[in-house]
Parts: sequence; structure tokens; C-alpha cells
Amino acid sequence: MIPIISIVGKSNSGKTTLIEKLTPELKRRGLKVGTIKHDVHGFELDQEGKDTWRHAQAGVDIVVISSPQKAACIKKVDIELTLDELVCQFLTDMDVVLTEGYKRQDKPKIEIYRAELGEEPLCADDKTLIAIVSDTQTQLNVPHFSTQDIEQLADFIIKRFRNIGDKDAVQLFVNGKQIPLSKRFTQTILHKTISGMIDSLKGTESAKQIRIFIDENA
Amino acid sequence: MIPIISIVGKSNSGKTTLIEKLTPELKRRGLKVGTIKHDVHGFELDQEGKDTWRHAQAGVDIVVISSPQKAACIKKVDIELTLDELVCQFLTDMDVVLTEGYKRQDKPKIEIYRAELGEEPLCADDKTLIAIVSDTQTQLNVPHFSTQDIEQLADFIIKRFRNIGDKDAVQLFVNGKQIPLSKRFTQTILHKTISGMIDSLKGTESAKQIRIFIDENA
Repeated sequence: MIPIISIVGKSNSGKTTLIEKLTPELKRRGLKVGTIKHDVHGFELDQEGKDTWRHAQAGVDIVVISSPQKAACIKKVDIELTLDELVCQFLTDMDVVLTEGYKRQDKPKIEIYRAELGEEPLCADDKTLIAIVSDTQTQLNVPHFSTQDIEQLADFIIKRFRNIGDKDAVQLFVNGKQIPLSKRFTQTILHKTISGMIDSLKGTESAKQIRIFIDENA
Repeated sequence: MIPIISIVGKSNSGKTTLIEKLTPELKRRGLKVGTIKHDVHGFELDQEGKDTWRHAQAGVDIVVISSPQKAACIKKVDIELTLDELVCQFLTDMDVVLTEGYKRQDKPKIEIYRAELGEEPLCADDKTLIAIVSDTQTQLNVPHFSTQDIEQLADFIIKRFRNIGDKDAVQLFVNGKQIPLSKRFTQTILHKTISGMIDSLKGTESAKQIRIFIDENA
């Protein structure tokens, strides 16, 4: 299972800065890190007049741009995607996903709290809060890290999500949500059965990476 | 199978304009259209100083941004992804994928040709050329459309890729490449076997969308 951890806090509390500091600590521990930024107001990544912008204006549903260093994808949606759906679509290769924002979703949360921005932490009554990052003391009954304790925060995350980085050979997503699979039993059965089934098809020799997409309504 | 069609032509021949005109014609025929733009020089989608730009600078491997209207993903790669890999990762929901450029890959090609830009069409000797769009005559033995004949070009594409838009309930990708599956037999077996196997797992009730990712090296 890919851990999804939400970095939450009031506006200007330092969420982006915390992600900037935490990412290298997690990467130094060998983890692939993905992030999801919530933009309620809508965003414009592409620049007017560029070829990819012109594609989107012409009605293309998904525009992809690819270079030797990067690949990017811009996709229109009818309904905002959930965190689980975003992970299922874009982040299945990652060891851990940090979200900036998403305080209303039910993922484990780390709040960055600055006393001067308001009286109470955002997640004072939130059962999904797992830690607080703040340079002032709070009454909250969760581990507390100062904004300088980023190494300790990374260690805490690694300890809290025990199998972090221990990538599953088989990942299953149903209706956009990852389903936990026991390594020994379920993963082995799924892996062997599927490999056996597709073995006789042309083009499946030395299959190292298998992707199956099933859509009931298709 | 998702048809992938490359729109090729010399620089300034009108590739982007052709995609701009062809897309609404294909969409009017009920198709979901994705595009892939090849950018050999590298691109910068994000703007300096923005939160997502700061994530990427901090070393995040995949940055996702999500709003109620759009979702986007920017991913670092070590080696440029192939067209098949890009489709497998980003475009499996589409009915047809148009690429801008990619004249060296082996996908069916439509060349846009302007006599004033050079003596010969790019794909004069290319067996993957399926049509030419040009306002001058050529000697090439493929269907010819003028730059005004976009409706006819869309009809030609629909006829050429017979099952276009007839989305498979089960899509299989091995090592990044889509494997053709016979609808009646292979799709049904895969679908029923997989549904049966995961049926007893928690969280798989009313599974409309199933995604399985298998990675040998994980």
C-alpha cells in the first residue's frame, strides 16, 4: 500500500516549505516521493499560444507532452478527482505520497501550526492527525516536531508506515481505491494466475510489467 | 486497442493546426481524443516560484496538481518514454491518440505536406504513411486530402481503424505495450477470473473499475 500523508495548515503556515524540507529527507532514505497539490481555484499550467495549449483549446481530453527529461499530462475532469483516484492514475510507482492541503479528506495528517496565525490548530479535533510541526507548544496529544526537526519527522514517518518503500509486486485498485493485499498469499495467487493466463498471448514474452484495466461500462 | 496516429510534417507545415481542426471532427463523432506532443528540447510547464515548481525543485519524482476542472501530472524520467509507454501511463481512457511529431516511431502516420517547404514529403519512403494532407498533388500512393477536407479525413480515420471508439472492457499492457485481446474469449476469461479472485477481498464490492499493476522487480 502506498502511504498518502496530508500536510495541512492554515494559509501561509509553511506547507510548501515543509514539503521542500521533508522531500530530500525521505529521498535520502531511498524513497520515491510524489506530491499532490490541491488547487481549488483552478490552475493554468500551460501557456497561451503554445502547441499543447492549442490542443486543449481545440477540445482534446488529455494532452501529454514528452521530452527526454520529463513527461507531463493535463486532463480535463467533470468531477474533481479524489486523492485515491489521483494516486491510482498518476502515482502508483511512488513509495510515499505527500499532499499539500486536503484537510477535509480522511488521510493521515501532519499539521504545520503557527500560533500567531490563529488560536487553534486546524486539526485540533481531527482523529486523522498523526503529528504536529510547530515552534510553539500545543495541547494536542500527538507527536510534536519543531520546524527544525525534519530528520526526526522523516524517521517518524518511516516508523509509522512500517512497510513504506517495500513496494508490492502486485497492486490492486478497485473503483480508484487501493485494496490491501497480503504479500504471501493474495499477491502470489493474483500474480501467478494472471501470468499464466496471458502467457500464451503474442507479445507477452518476458513480461516484467503487466497492467490490466477493467471497466464494467466499457 | 487504442489507435495511435502520428501527425508528421516538416517544421511549420501546420501539424498543430491540423490537430486543432481534426480534434473537433473526431469529438463530433463521439470519440475521446488524447494528444501527445513531442518536445525534444525539453519543456517548462510550471512557473518558477509556484508551489508545484518548488516541489519539483525539492526533488519530488512526480508532482500532481488537481482542481475541480483539471488534473495534471509532471514526472521526471531517466529515459524518454515511448509512445506506447505514454499511452499506457496516461491515455488508457481515450478512444484515439494523435501524436504531434514522432516521425521515427512506427505508428501509422498522416503527413501534412507543403510543397513550398521542400522538394519531397518526409514520409515518401515510409511504409507507415496512411494518408497525406496537402494542397498540392504528390506522387505518393496513399489517400490524399486537401487542408480543407478535414471531415473526409476524420471519416477516413474512422473507417481505417474499424473498432475505434468501441472501448475494450479489458485492456492489457505488457512492458508498456498494449496487447490485442479477442473480445469474446480472452477478455471474458480475464475479466471473470480476476473478478472471481478479488471478490472475497474487503473493499471490492460493486467493482466497476479494476486496475492491476504487476512489477516483477518490485
